[in-house]
Amino acid sequence: MENFEYLNPTRIVFGKGTIARVAGLVPKDRPVLMTYGGGSIKRNGVYEQTRAALQGFDVREFGGIEPNPRYETLMQAVELGRRENVGFLLSVGGGSVLDGTKFIAAAMRFPGSEPWDILAKRAKVEDAVPLGGILTLPATGSESNGNAVVSRESTREKLAFYSEKVYPRFAILDPETTFTLPPRQTANGVVDAFIHVMEQYMTYPVNAPLQDRQAEGILLTLVEEGPKIMAQPDDYATRANIMWTATQALNGLISCGVPQDWATHGIGHELTALYGLDHAQTLAVVFPALLQHQRARKAGKILQYAARVWGITEGGEEQRIDAAIAKTEAFFRSLGVKTRLSEYGIAEGYDEVAKRIGARGSALGEHGDIGPAEINAILALCAA
Amino acid sequence: MENFEYLNPTRIVFGKGTIARVAGLVPKDRPVLMTYGGGSIKRNGVYEQTRAALQGFDVREFGGIEPNPRYETLMQAVELGRRENVGFLLSVGGGSVLDGTKFIAAAMRFPGSEPWDILAKRAKVEDAVPLGGILTLPATGSESNGNAVVSRESTREKLAFYSEKVYPRFAILDPETTFTLPPRQTANGVVDAFIHVMEQYMTYPVNAPLQDRQAEGILLTLVEEGPKIMAQPDDYATRANIMWTATQALNGLISCGVPQDWATHGIGHELTALYGLDHAQTLAVVFPALLQHQRARKAGKILQYAARVWGITEGGEEQRIDAAIAKTEAFFRSLGVKTRLSEYGIAEGYDEVAKRIGARGSALGEHGDIGPAEINAILALCAA
Repeated sequence: MENFEYLNPTRIVFGKGTIARVAGLVPKDRPVLMTYGGGSIKRNGVYEQTRAALQGFDVREFGGIEPNPRYETLMQAVELGRRENVGFLLSVGGGSVLDGTKFIAAAMRFPGSEPWDILAKRAKVEDAVPLGGILTLPATGSESNGNAVVSRESTREKLAFYSEKVYPRFAILDPETTFTLPPRQTANGVVDAFIHVMEQYMTYPVNAPLQDRQAEGILLTLVEEGPKIMAQPDDYATRANIMWTATQALNGLISCGVPQDWATHGIGHELTALYGLDHAQTLAVVFPALLQHQRARKAGKILQYAARVWGITEGGEEQRIDAAIAKTEAFFRSLGVKTRLSEYGIAEGYDEVAKRIGARGSALGEHGDIGPAEINAILALCAA
Repeated sequence: MENFEYLNPTRIVFGKGTIARVAGLVPKDRPVLMTYGGGSIKRNGVYEQTRAALQGFDVREFGGIEPNPRYETLMQAVELGRRENVGFLLSVGGGSVLDGTKFIAAAMRFPGSEPWDILAKRAKVEDAVPLGGILTLPATGSESNGNAVVSRESTREKLAFYSEKVYPRFAILDPETTFTLPPRQTANGVVDAFIHVMEQYMTYPVNAPLQDRQAEGILLTLVEEGPKIMAQPDDYATRANIMWTATQALNGLISCGVPQDWATHGIGHELTALYGLDHAQTLAVVFPALLQHQRARKAGKILQYAARVWGITEGGEEQRIDAAIAKTEAFFRSLGVKTRLSEYGIAEGYDEVAKRIGARGSALGEHGDIGPAEINAILALCAA
């Protein structure tokens, strides 16, 4: 096991009927800025529940945060927050609203003139407005971590930052808020959580048996619960299991003391920025191809994954690796998420992905050596 | 899954050579009280490393905190801390020192005249001196939770309290500090962590597949790593795995949304208070007997445990339950921890245990119905 540091100060309030608890968690002394997305919370009752809970609070609103939240949009909220002396940000929505709210929180107190530097130049976040979340879409884990991804319309960039300062103070997870999610978002959430685990698990063995089992536990749960939730979207127990599992997939726990990959996300972000694919769609496309491309170096972990998650124990090593990759892709497809670039109408020109990553001078993967040539080879594997 | 709330704000700093990090984690503005136990930290270099790291800090010391820390001793530290205007408590040692330090932290700011009320009358802890820990014995999980158990010499009581206010701000876990532990303490730590999981797992199914797998992951790791650490006490990788696993066993995570038992601890505390057995020894005695006594009501989980932890899948249900109980007891014995009251020289009179628990008016277990009669039956099962 490698040395590590772990901190996760988010208070989780989980279960049926918990939105009302927000009143005891948000400070009342200054205006609260409630952030949300395209308005689904107004259709499923979450908006009303939240406003009802916050009676007596000085609440301002900022709606319209997009999936893949845009810098241009978020900067309007930063201006509003500063102008209105907002002391707390309350994100009501999924991972995009949370990510956007984290950026607003950091940007509101960013001393420089260009908060984009937090993303593009990795400028350190020294301070942030405190924030909390009411989660309506289990997927990103953003409700209980310090990560955020923001896109910039003008340059078609999609970049990430991390700061301890933007961990939500609390996250309210009421599985009932997810009953009305469209199937595409439900499926995307399962895929997203699955790949989050893979980025932290599917590398090489470092004698960390507990972390491995914690990761495999999440994968197994998603494999079991994923099909159930697609078949019966209003089953509370299954929704609850998916919701808690997605949080555990990216709250920092399973990456303790182990190497991490994140190449799938690195490539995926460019596919979203260039072609507008859903985040999870890009992951479902890239990951099986990445596994194929890295099968020799990841062999130890792929074989363990094959045995423990899919029960694949028969046959030679190459056969078992083939079977594990096939099972993984088939799982995504069984949820209705396509796994080939061609299925999204992307036939050529995707070498732009490698160029952009190369231009930033970064190489990806747990060995830090997935460069433009490897990225092109991976994309060729999932082209058709 | 049941509704739940989860918070764990402790910063974990894990790995080789991390004790020096304490300097960046302890506030420098007021005197720091360093608490420790019987002096083993002076023999294994931890004391010197800590003092060296804290050069320039105003450090006071309070040594001599016992295993099963005593109220009478801790109140001396409370007096010292108040007198010296201590602003931070640094626990250097195992779970007993940590538990004792948590009590000191709460008692120093307790407004009433009798801090024992925190334990005996469950008086609410409204405030506590902040504390941190350098852990030298993986076992109790106290380094990353809000629990503490304190004994009172004069009344032979052993009682627990919980408060969010006494979570350590940080916990430094350097596995090298555990190389020199006596085998008995190493084995006790493995048993303690194992039973901590069982108290949160071995109840009845509530459709919480992730929590089950997280718990089973800890059990499997202890089953695999336990014998290794007894055979090779200075193997860093194994010590690291044991240390992280013990923390995960009682940091609140695996109890999220599931019922909890704690009858084994309830009975065990009395055995320690009355007969002076090590905490883990009491658990190794009581738990197999409790499983036996509760085999019908716990059947669902025992069968799952049998299959997933011990690979027991052949035979009828009763046979598999028998085999799982036998494996559990054999595991404790393989570590050198005895499992029968007679082996500790306790032949009779142990009905005092049930009387004391009964006198407090509490019934134990996940159904809250393990009363004096059941306790006597359980103790009879592990008598000889």
